[in-house]
Amino acid sequence: MQFDTISSISTPVGEGAIAIVRLSGEDAVDIADRLYKGKKSLKEVDSHTINYGHIVDPKTEEVIEEVMVAVMRAPRTYTREDIVEINCHGGIHTINHILQLTLQNGATMAEPGEFTKRAFLNGRIDLSQAEGIMDFIRSKTDDASKIANQQMQGRLKEYIERLRQEILEVLAQVEVNIDYPEYDDVEEATTRQLLEESQKIKEEIEDLLKSSREGRILREGLNTVIVGKPNVGKSSLLNYLIQDNRAIVTDIAGTTRDILEEYVNVNGIPLKLVDTAGIRETEDVVERIGVERSREALNNAELILYLLDNTQGFSSEDEEILDVLKDRNVIIIVNKMDLDGKIDIKDMESKYDFPVVLTSITEGTGIKSLEEGIKQLFFSGGLSLQDSTYVSNNRHIHLLEQANNSISDAIEAAEMDIPVDMIQIDLVKTWQLLGEVIGQDVSEELIDQLFSQFCLGK
Amino acid sequence: MQFDTISSISTPVGEGAIAIVRLSGEDAVDIADRLYKGKKSLKEVDSHTINYGHIVDPKTEEVIEEVMVAVMRAPRTYTREDIVEINCHGGIHTINHILQLTLQNGATMAEPGEFTKRAFLNGRIDLSQAEGIMDFIRSKTDDASKIANQQMQGRLKEYIERLRQEILEVLAQVEVNIDYPEYDDVEEATTRQLLEESQKIKEEIEDLLKSSREGRILREGLNTVIVGKPNVGKSSLLNYLIQDNRAIVTDIAGTTRDILEEYVNVNGIPLKLVDTAGIRETEDVVERIGVERSREALNNAELILYLLDNTQGFSSEDEEILDVLKDRNVIIIVNKMDLDGKIDIKDMESKYDFPVVLTSITEGTGIKSLEEGIKQLFFSGGLSLQDSTYVSNNRHIHLLEQANNSISDAIEAAEMDIPVDMIQIDLVKTWQLLGEVIGQDVSEELIDQLFSQFCLGK
Repeated sequence: MQFDTISSISTPVGEGAIAIVRLSGEDAVDIADRLYKGKKSLKEVDSHTINYGHIVDPKTEEVIEEVMVAVMRAPRTYTREDIVEINCHGGIHTINHILQLTLQNGATMAEPGEFTKRAFLNGRIDLSQAEGIMDFIRSKTDDASKIANQQMQGRLKEYIERLRQEILEVLAQVEVNIDYPEYDDVEEATTRQLLEESQKIKEEIEDLLKSSREGRILREGLNTVIVGKPNVGKSSLLNYLIQDNRAIVTDIAGTTRDILEEYVNVNGIPLKLVDTAGIRETEDVVERIGVERSREALNNAELILYLLDNTQGFSSEDEEILDVLKDRNVIIIVNKMDLDGKIDIKDMESKYDFPVVLTSITEGTGIKSLEEGIKQLFFSGGLSLQDSTYVSNNRHIHLLEQANNSISDAIEAAEMDIPVDMIQIDLVKTWQLLGEVIGQDVSEELIDQLFSQFCLGK
Repeated sequence: MQFDTISSISTPVGEGAIAIVRLSGEDAVDIADRLYKGKKSLKEVDSHTINYGHIVDPKTEEVIEEVMVAVMRAPRTYTREDIVEINCHGGIHTINHILQLTLQNGATMAEPGEFTKRAFLNGRIDLSQAEGIMDFIRSKTDDASKIANQQMQGRLKEYIERLRQEILEVLAQVEVNIDYPEYDDVEEATTRQLLEESQKIKEEIEDLLKSSREGRILREGLNTVIVGKPNVGKSSLLNYLIQDNRAIVTDIAGTTRDILEEYVNVNGIPLKLVDTAGIRETEDVVERIGVERSREALNNAELILYLLDNTQGFSSEDEEILDVLKDRNVIIIVNKMDLDGKIDIKDMESKYDFPVVLTSITEGTGIKSLEEGIKQLFFSGGLSLQDSTYVSNNRHIHLLEQANNSISDAIEAAEMDIPVDMIQIDLVKTWQLLGEVIGQDVSEELIDQLFSQFCLGK
């Protein structure tokens, strides 16, 4: 395919040691060379080399910057097009200046994600890999980045391609059966075969979907609220979790005040602690449940940490609230276990199905059991990232659910002895839906929308 | 010199398309190679090449990231040591992981500015060039980056080296005169020669110092306050200046609220508008001059924009304030010139030495004359960045002032016929002080302190 040559700043905005302007396209080397003065013209240097020189404004002949320019020629590049990366000292002012010079000399400004979009459109990666790259950049914990990395490396793509191949083989077999009938009961035998194969495929789709809940949690974090009566130590728990386990927050600008959520990384599981501002403003979260924002946070929570103070005891108020929450994922945390307590732990454990975790935040004990409690609730105790293919992306999950419906339709039809060509239609639909995961036959609009979520310069 | 191999993240923190871990030192290639799997070992690749591969945790064999690794061997590098740059997808989580792996495999964490410090200690650049790099990164306008760029390229270094050479030649000549006297009045002739040469050197130091006021303004911005009676339109002027001319603010985090200063770029001159929060809070800056913060801002201001409203006229209050400010750099701005006015412009111009600028902020006229007014006050009307050497760094200015004192002492001594060896002492001192500008004989402590102001990874 043939596109414009695009240009963008590819390093994060901010003061840093290195800033990069990246060009991709047929004219990338030409455009960069117009701005470059070095020992050799960039047109003459070998591919995949780094070249020392200066950026000079071709109009004014003014030396703008000392640079290292990387030249990578198609097709062994990120986009499969010629790529030039101009590395300079990390000044915001100058990097903007160099970007402007590339635009004045023939490049067009890259849209967010346009480099990766080209990698996709030029066939180097499929859509699930492209989405993996984005998830990878945004991943907040080790496990999340592992899943994204696997997806980026093509593991989901391979899984989906295998499934699609299986469907194609079934469809082909049906054609063979019909064209060259070995048996008299061709129709019946074919339906039986279709049923068997469809059930196998459905199982595989379901396996993938099973991973999706865990995958989504690892990718997006578990919406978590801390609930408890006033003064049981909610803000201490919050601060303790944040202090030791703060996940790297990617959105740096403007998050220091009025922060409504914080990510913490509890043994690999990202908790998205919601309504933290509420907790900081007032200890009074139980009262604040009346407040709309807190109520909403509670309703949306996937995990509720219900905090009790061992020295205050367990009141009828606590009982009422826990009754309301009985169908939710709750972990009861009894804090201040280092002090003499009024709470009968055994009684509590027998009364509720929730895991009960004993902590002393001041002494820093018991957090380990909290981690165990979370794994027990959400990951059936363990994670096996190395061996499984995880689905974590909402678009993929949605398509897999649709594919699952359509293969179920095929199975149902086969069981009801509906004519083979009707069953074929459901199989083809399943095949198509799976194809959309990896970017087969998806609309341009969807592609544009997906890549626009990328960051600039990627 | 031989140092540890250091490692650091060299791109700004934040979500971006490319993130870089940079290694420098004798073991840079070895350490990177332990983590790298590609077609060839990094030990075997040519210098200044970019190599596609993966970062693999050598303990767990887990694939961490798809990377492009640049290998640059000494001495043609930033530090004059072997440098390896690991370019990866811009995820914060992963880049941290890769940094950790380099540390686990033999690198030590680089201190802020340590790469540049090595470039200095290994003799690739002098201290003024290193300081130029830092200024370059932080520069807020074109002109500031030009000055920093010149300094980075060594223009100040050359100037200083030439001056020092001149001093050395004078000193050598003195020795020759004394050892091989041609005349009977050796002492007198030598003193005369010393006087002449010292005067020449003093002139050159003073030329440099003359540039420092302008250089410092271009580098740090002109402390500017907007003053005027209530409701003359101070916040409109402020917003107008900010809106069209906002300089790039490097400190991105947390600057959105309670902002006390804003940089605006008025035709290349960075104005640091102080106490903008005060103006935003209340129009009432004249009243607020009573408030300590505003008073301090006014006292420290290098430029005072005194705003009048043409439709309100010129009051005795205005007169009082302008009288107090008569020795300061004031520009009188008469706004709302598009409306019928009560202010007699000619009378005002004859009464005050200040430039009077006529604007209509709503119509956006007159800002050009404001620019002219500023240039007139601070740059004797023009800037000639291409031809002059500018000094903008406070450390340099301070050393040049000391050098100027010491060469003045030499001149005074020569005029008073003080013995030649006393004059020599002053010249040697001047030579030493100039040397400190480029980093000769500066203490380790000073070097550490200077480089610690750099950003991480530089």
